[in-house]
Amino acid sequence: MNSSIVSSRAASLTPYVAGEQPQNRKYIKLNTNESPYPPPPSVSAQLRDYDAEGLRLYPDPQFTAPRRILAERYSLDPEEVFFGNGSDEILSFAFFAFFDPDNGPVLFPEHTYSFYPVYCTFYGLSSRRLPLCKDFSIDLNDYINEKEHAGVVIANPNAPTGISIERRTIESFLRSYRSDRICIIDEAYVDFGAESCASLIRDFPNLLVVHTFSKSRCLAGLRVGFALGDRKLIKTLFAVKDSFNSYPLNRMTQDITCTVLQEEDYFLDIRGRIIETRENVTWRLRKSGWEVLPSKANFIFARFPGVEGAEIYRRLKEEGILVRHFSHRGIEDFIRITIGTDADMETFFTTLQSLGFIRR
Amino acid sequence: MNSSIVSSRAASLTPYVAGEQPQNRKYIKLNTNESPYPPPPSVSAQLRDYDAEGLRLYPDPQFTAPRRILAERYSLDPEEVFFGNGSDEILSFAFFAFFDPDNGPVLFPEHTYSFYPVYCTFYGLSSRRLPLCKDFSIDLNDYINEKEHAGVVIANPNAPTGISIERRTIESFLRSYRSDRICIIDEAYVDFGAESCASLIRDFPNLLVVHTFSKSRCLAGLRVGFALGDRKLIKTLFAVKDSFNSYPLNRMTQDITCTVLQEEDYFLDIRGRIIETRENVTWRLRKSGWEVLPSKANFIFARFPGVEGAEIYRRLKEEGILVRHFSHRGIEDFIRITIGTDADMETFFTTLQSLGFIRR
Repeated sequence: MNSSIVSSRAASLTPYVAGEQPQNRKYIKLNTNESPYPPPPSVSAQLRDYDAEGLRLYPDPQFTAPRRILAERYSLDPEEVFFGNGSDEILSFAFFAFFDPDNGPVLFPEHTYSFYPVYCTFYGLSSRRLPLCKDFSIDLNDYINEKEHAGVVIANPNAPTGISIERRTIESFLRSYRSDRICIIDEAYVDFGAESCASLIRDFPNLLVVHTFSKSRCLAGLRVGFALGDRKLIKTLFAVKDSFNSYPLNRMTQDITCTVLQEEDYFLDIRGRIIETRENVTWRLRKSGWEVLPSKANFIFARFPGVEGAEIYRRLKEEGILVRHFSHRGIEDFIRITIGTDADMETFFTTLQSLGFIRR
Repeated sequence: MNSSIVSSRAASLTPYVAGEQPQNRKYIKLNTNESPYPPPPSVSAQLRDYDAEGLRLYPDPQFTAPRRILAERYSLDPEEVFFGNGSDEILSFAFFAFFDPDNGPVLFPEHTYSFYPVYCTFYGLSSRRLPLCKDFSIDLNDYINEKEHAGVVIANPNAPTGISIERRTIESFLRSYRSDRICIIDEAYVDFGAESCASLIRDFPNLLVVHTFSKSRCLAGLRVGFALGDRKLIKTLFAVKDSFNSYPLNRMTQDITCTVLQEEDYFLDIRGRIIETRENVTWRLRKSGWEVLPSKANFIFARFPGVEGAEIYRRLKEEGILVRHFSHRGIEDFIRITIGTDADMETFFTTLQSLGFIRR
C-alpha cells in the first residue's frame, strides 16, 4: 500500500492488546476479569418480551432513562452522569476532553491499566509514568509534586496490582491538587471492596469518577460504562460524544442498563461471593508459598518465587487455564488471576499442585 | 468552572446536531431517515431465546461471525470487512486513519452529511467544501482538479439532496484520482436505488465504502455500520479501533447482525416498498407545485415555491409531522422528508392540503 494513505498519526499507533479470547478450545478464563456469574435473570426475562420493532428508531442520545436511575442512586442530578459504550469509550472521550497536549504530560502510575498510554498516543498527548512504591502501592504525594502536566488518571483499585487507595487519602490529595487540572479516578474494580469517590464529586469540580458494568455487574458483553462528575465536565463529555458518534449506546443496552440497576440484591450477592472467593484464594496461595498483593478487585496479582510469571502462564494455559501475564519490567514475575467461581478456583489449585507450583 | 480543565480542542468543538427526537408528543417522524418498517421478525425470535448468561463475557473484538457472512455476501475476504458502532463511528475512525492534517484540507461537497465537518474539527483537520452544481448534483471532476488536500469523502446518494452518482462515474473518477489519497464513499442510503461501489474495492486500494444498518436494514436503534476496503485499510481501521475501544459492538449487536444478514427477502421487500412510496410521493408533490430533487434515498429534498422551508417545517410540526429543515444558505428553501409508510405519507399530503401547501 502507498503508505501515505494512512495518516502519520494512525501509522504511529500502538494499539491496546486485550487479554486473549481464544476460540479453539474451552478454557477456564481467569484472564480478562470478567464475572464468572451471569447477569441477573431479569435480563433474560426482559429479552424474552423485548420490543424488537422499536429497534427501527434511533436510541436516546441523552441516555435519559439510565441517567435518571443512576443519578438517584448516587443522590446526584442526571446532569452529573454520563454513559458510554464501555468505560473504555468514556476514558477515551475524557482524555480528549480534559488533557491538553500543551499543558505537558498526562500522569499515571508506571504499572496500571495499559490503555492509558494508548489513549495518549491516539490523542497526541505525552505521558509520564510515576513509579509505584516498593510494595506496589501508589503514593499520591508523588503526583502533587509534579510541576507541568496535563492532569492525572488513577485506577482505584489499581490494575494489575489490585491494590486500592482509601477515599480519605484521595480526598486529601484532591485538597492539595491544583484545581485547574483534572483528576480521573477509574473505578472499574471499586465494587469489590474499595471505597468509591463518587461522594466527592460535588466537592471537587475537577474530579471525574469512571465506572464499568463489565466486572461487578456481570455485563462485559453488553459494553456499558458511566462517569460521574461536575455538570460542566459531563457537558463537555457530551460535546465530545456528539462530535464522534451521537448514539454510542443502542436501545437494548440502555434498556438492560435500567433493568440491571434495579437488581441491587443480586449485585450485592455476586459481589459478596467474589470477595469471599478472593479472600479464600489469597489465603490458600499464601499458605502455598505464593506472594499475593492485597487485592480489593475481582482479580489477584501473585508470584511464585523461583518460577517466572511467563512460565506459570504458559504451563497453566497448556492445562486449560488462562491467566494474564505482563512482561513489563518490575512486574514480570507476577501473573494476574481473575477470581472465578469456587469450582474454577478449585481446578486452578489442583492444576497448580500437579504442576508443582505449590510449596508446603 | 476553571476553563482550563477543558482542553482547548474540546472547548472549540461544534458538535453534530442530530434530528430532534421529541419525547413530549407523538409525531409522524419523517425527520431522521429511520425506516418506517420494523426489523425482520427473526430478530424478536432470536431475543426470545437469547443466551443472556453469555453477556458476562466480552464480545468478539474481531467481529468474526458477521464479518464472515458479509464477506461472503460481497465475494470478499473477511480481512476486507470492518464493523463499527454505527457508520458514524466508522467514519470517525476513518477520518483519523486516512486524513493527514499535514496534507491539506479534506474535500467534500458544500451540502452533504453535516457530521463531516464535525469530524474535521474533532481531529484537527481543515476542510474545503466544493459547491454543488446548479441542479444540486456533485461533479467529481471538481475534485480531480484540487491540488493539495488530504482526501475526499462523498455521500452517495448525497444527503440531504438524495441525488446519486452512477458507479461508472465514480470508477472513472477513481481512475484519474491520485492513488496516495483516500476516497471514502459513504453509502448510507445506497440500497434505495443507487449503485454501490463495493465491487470496485479490489481495483482501488484507496477506496473505502461505508454502509449502515440504520436505514435499509431497519435497525437505527441497534447501531451497526460496516466498511469495505483493501485489507490494509481495514487493518488500519482495526488499529484505530483498538486504540480507542477494543469492543465497540456488543454481543447482542453482533448476533442480531448475523441474523439480519440472512434476511435478504425481507430486506428486498422493505426496500422495494420504500422506493415505490418515494416515487409515488415525488410524483404527487411535483403535480402539486413542488420542486422535488431526483432521489435515490429513503428521503426526498423538496421545496414549495413561495414559502420558506423553515415555515413549512414549523407548520408541519404544529400539525404533528416532523420533517428536517437546514438553514444553510442555498438549501434553506428546502425541507427533507423521510419516506414513511403509505399511511404516513397520506397524512402528510392531507396536512399539506389543509395548510395550503398544495397548488393545483
